[in-house]
Amino acid sequence: MDHAATKPHEALAAHLDGKMQDVDALIRDRMASRHAPRIPEVTAHLVNAGGKRLRPMLTLAAADLCGYAGHYDVHLAATVEFIHTATLLHDDVVDESAQRRGRPTANLLFDNKSSVLTGDYLFARAFQLMVETGSLRVLDILANASATIAEGEVLQLTAARNLKTDEDIYLQVVRGKTAALFSAATEVGGVIAGADAHRIKALYDYGDALGVAFQIVDDLLDYQGDTKATGKNVGDDFRERKLTLPVIKAVAVGTPEERAFWSRTIEKGDQRDGDLDEALRLLHLHGALDATQQDALHWAGRARDQITALPAHPVREMLGDLADYVVARLR
Amino acid sequence: MDHAATKPHEALAAHLDGKMQDVDALIRDRMASRHAPRIPEVTAHLVNAGGKRLRPMLTLAAADLCGYAGHYDVHLAATVEFIHTATLLHDDVVDESAQRRGRPTANLLFDNKSSVLTGDYLFARAFQLMVETGSLRVLDILANASATIAEGEVLQLTAARNLKTDEDIYLQVVRGKTAALFSAATEVGGVIAGADAHRIKALYDYGDALGVAFQIVDDLLDYQGDTKATGKNVGDDFRERKLTLPVIKAVAVGTPEERAFWSRTIEKGDQRDGDLDEALRLLHLHGALDATQQDALHWAGRARDQITALPAHPVREMLGDLADYVVARLR
Repeated sequence: MDHAATKPHEALAAHLDGKMQDVDALIRDRMASRHAPRIPEVTAHLVNAGGKRLRPMLTLAAADLCGYAGHYDVHLAATVEFIHTATLLHDDVVDESAQRRGRPTANLLFDNKSSVLTGDYLFARAFQLMVETGSLRVLDILANASATIAEGEVLQLTAARNLKTDEDIYLQVVRGKTAALFSAATEVGGVIAGADAHRIKALYDYGDALGVAFQIVDDLLDYQGDTKATGKNVGDDFRERKLTLPVIKAVAVGTPEERAFWSRTIEKGDQRDGDLDEALRLLHLHGALDATQQDALHWAGRARDQITALPAHPVREMLGDLADYVVARLR
Repeated sequence: MDHAATKPHEALAAHLDGKMQDVDALIRDRMASRHAPRIPEVTAHLVNAGGKRLRPMLTLAAADLCGYAGHYDVHLAATVEFIHTATLLHDDVVDESAQRRGRPTANLLFDNKSSVLTGDYLFARAFQLMVETGSLRVLDILANASATIAEGEVLQLTAARNLKTDEDIYLQVVRGKTAALFSAATEVGGVIAGADAHRIKALYDYGDALGVAFQIVDDLLDYQGDTKATGKNVGDDFRERKLTLPVIKAVAVGTPEERAFWSRTIEKGDQRDGDLDEALRLLHLHGALDATQQDALHWAGRARDQITALPAHPVREMLGDLADYVVARLR
């Protein structure tokens, strides 16, 4: 794999350029509020911070791959980004985060109130956009995804600080908080294009596996990332007492003394100087970071397999490369 | 008006008894979560606290009034209650409330995180219920109402502590935070029953006027209510620095000294012993409470007029009485 050349998400963005601009224009139009000027202030801060717009791109790519010639893919891409932005706003309140994408979070710049209510507004706007497409099936998929996302986040509240949380529960949380929107994003792209059931299933499975790989990599970067590239500080999850896959793997094979260390730092939240170093030492000692990376590669491979099964198409290659690239972020 | 007899909402509840039980069963079924047991804990606390279920009753009543014989009115009534409950959960976080309906709020019993995410879950569940009815028009109405509610709440954030807020802005906030869901509740009842445009418009206008009357009365009760009946303490809005209609009226005719008092207590939040008594004295001095009550009566009258224009029906009489009763809470 040669990543000196164009990165796959950049190739996708270039291929979908006109549509991505339409999505951008629609987002800016619909995030406005005639009555409450605070709303666009809060959303602009996030929308301008400019993530990679990965999720809306997945919707456009899936529709393109299925030969869609209409314009509702733009509505759905904006919908997906609104749902994503709404969950980010609420997550930052829930996590009491101070930074997102290397910039202060909205709840810090404004307040928790504005973040909660603006998230609600964007969620409602997302449903308005879906209604405009006239597709009940799309509404069904994204209403279900929204419920799964919230469920995953609530599950995380109780599971994150409990050493009994195993890889199955971790996967359930990840499917909720991340993969549900990835898989819905690709699925609705196929649905709006009127693709057959087989193709829609492959798109769903691709999004699901890509989302799981993406989140595992995110959790891994938290222990081995570089702050400048990720906008996160190494050890944020540890300090926030979030039990993620690397720690789950280390706990599973740890000695009673090590378990006591994890229990004190994660479950009880009694953290002292040097604890993060000790955590990193234990993760390396048990090969937990390598094993987590293997899991990420496994999920990325599943994503690639799903998309490769579809008929040849330039977008198919880009989505396949994207699956590899998501894990390549680690190197 | 004789209120020694059955109260109108009780008469409605009795008339709609079987349906209200179906709504209750559906709510209990759908507020559950297979994966996150925290969710039903949070919602049960609120659902069992048992408000009057006024909003879902309005949906059932509107559908009944229009001769609906199907069962999707139950879905829509549960939808409306879910949206209401979701906004209550988020409101209590935003307002940092400790009490609701005379009991501790969910954010106090659990935490803000659980309230935010459970609200999101209920909102998604509400949209799932709407999708099941197969009516895009219903989805459109309730997605619009949800956006208007969030917009009203955000507007309130900036307007509530600003003495420049006038009766027009107050009305806009009230339409958002309260009347939007009342009018959507009655409108979708008519829509699901396949009523004609004229009747649907009357139902919408009834809900809108009833919601405005309801909120004005709520704001008035905050200054002259009795804690045992309302579950609120006199002066909560004053202490939370919320500029509601009685104060807006008093500010509008106040002397410069009085303006300085309101600016210190509401805008700057510098409140001292005896300030609530002084606020009450000024409200009485300028007849602001009486004038606010007149406004509530005016809106209740508008609601009654709208419903009276519809063909005779037992539910029509109950809804008319309900409009009067909403204001009669004051006496």
